[in-house]
Amino acid sequence: MSTLSAVIEKVRPTTEDDITAEVLRRFENTTDPRLREIMQSLVRHVHAFIKDVQLSEKEWWRGIDFLTKTGQKCDAERQEFILLSDVLGVSMVTDLIGNRKPAGATESTVFGPFHRHGAPELPPGGDMRSVERGGITAMISGRVLDLQGHPIANALLDVWQAAPDGLYDVQDTTLDKTNMRGKYRTDAQGRYLVKSTRPVPYMIQSDGPVGQMLRAANRSPWRPAHVHFVVSADGYSPVTTHIFDAGSQYLNDDAVFGVKNSLIVDFVAHNTADEASRQFGVAPPFVTAEYDFVLAPLTK
Amino acid sequence: MSTLSAVIEKVRPTTEDDITAEVLRRFENTTDPRLREIMQSLVRHVHAFIKDVQLSEKEWWRGIDFLTKTGQKCDAERQEFILLSDVLGVSMVTDLIGNRKPAGATESTVFGPFHRHGAPELPPGGDMRSVERGGITAMISGRVLDLQGHPIANALLDVWQAAPDGLYDVQDTTLDKTNMRGKYRTDAQGRYLVKSTRPVPYMIQSDGPVGQMLRAANRSPWRPAHVHFVVSADGYSPVTTHIFDAGSQYLNDDAVFGVKNSLIVDFVAHNTADEASRQFGVAPPFVTAEYDFVLAPLTK
Repeated sequence: MSTLSAVIEKVRPTTEDDITAEVLRRFENTTDPRLREIMQSLVRHVHAFIKDVQLSEKEWWRGIDFLTKTGQKCDAERQEFILLSDVLGVSMVTDLIGNRKPAGATESTVFGPFHRHGAPELPPGGDMRSVERGGITAMISGRVLDLQGHPIANALLDVWQAAPDGLYDVQDTTLDKTNMRGKYRTDAQGRYLVKSTRPVPYMIQSDGPVGQMLRAANRSPWRPAHVHFVVSADGYSPVTTHIFDAGSQYLNDDAVFGVKNSLIVDFVAHNTADEASRQFGVAPPFVTAEYDFVLAPLTK
Repeated sequence: MSTLSAVIEKVRPTTEDDITAEVLRRFENTTDPRLREIMQSLVRHVHAFIKDVQLSEKEWWRGIDFLTKTGQKCDAERQEFILLSDVLGVSMVTDLIGNRKPAGATESTVFGPFHRHGAPELPPGGDMRSVERGGITAMISGRVLDLQGHPIANALLDVWQAAPDGLYDVQDTTLDKTNMRGKYRTDAQGRYLVKSTRPVPYMIQSDGPVGQMLRAANRSPWRPAHVHFVVSADGYSPVTTHIFDAGSQYLNDDAVFGVKNSLIVDFVAHNTADEASRQFGVAPPFVTAEYDFVLAPLTK
């Protein structure tokens, strides 16, 4: 029994807190100090969660199953973990931490799971619609400015939104091309002009584990009507944001917590021929919205 | 501008802590009070983690990517999220919380990702090896007892372990059947007898995201030599546990924090014919190990 008595002389972790201390110790030799900081903080908080709720083995199994299904729901056109991050408010907290902007700069909001590379480059006023899905034409115009109010020429606006049926192109199985996406450049006066449809409220994807969780929590899956923008320009800090339609439902209970007052914009109805219909060459009925994006200089 | 001024009158979350409060509020209507408790605690702890480390957007993206790849690594024979839970010590903390046993009862440890249903039922002394993978024969024997030391007849022992090459059958792509698994029953005196090979230390699966994380943390992927058991009997609380070989390396730095002193057992070498070789009908060299499992009565 000499082997046995020798090996059991070592003091081994026996309580939950012993285990936490031992796991933290094992991360001490992480090469990258930032990774060490993140992993040790993660271990502390996850262990504290398990201890606080006294998680049962059955609940642990449900958690493992939930995470597994969430990962397996992800593919080239679906990002269920971003959706989970969004509905838990994690995306907005990260967004606030990562995008502290000087006063006057356009505020950011969630990126969401529906951005795609390869949106078509369009001229000013070019139409984001590549197929007919109904809805009311919207002309969204404004400028991209610096903090002093000077126009930024050749700024890039990467724009995307859901179609009037509430679906992004990647959710629309009848589509074999992009729709409701476009990249626009500002002119020498910093002006841009987007042609699209008035955005509509829509339900976030609820056929996966995240949707199940929202239903169990009796939470609304709706997002208020919005258009996504990533606005960038050389020498400036880019902004990932939305503009929200002030006339939309669900501005007070966005499923992903993305609404900020400064991003709410009036969409003005034009039901008869007027100055705007002549200016944009669009027959009524249509709506217009105006929004100026303000970029802060690049820091770091 | 009447719509706009009306909707922006509402006070909206603007700081990170406002977002946390709003997310907690949204879970208030969860039907199941236990689910509400778990989700609200999870939100508090995950938000606290993000704020403590001031997680950057780039780091958030790495986290999303890590979780996605972890889920996508899972299939019928691979459970990368259990592996993640194991190496973060989450499994052991949950195990300690869920398995508070009376003094004298056999302690539990991690279940691990390699259990499979459908292991063959074997008679006492039946061999768990269905293919030849080398190694030294091990005869593991003992009794299943109640807290008063009385034998429990007809108790079920579900036993599995890695082969001498360090692989479980599900990892061995050359195998089309189970190997190193068996279900045994105790006799009227509570005795069981397992025939297998002496367990070896092995590396946890390191070809996935969890392995990458361990390498970045300079953490050892090794587990000390052990045999898995789930021991159950009518009227008793089942125990999920291992027995560890006292002569094994890595007893002090098990990658999944599973070692407990009470589970370390001497594996005794028999290099010449002796009483044990006659008793078990096994030619030397072989090893024997003895362990009595003690089950607590079923509670609740």
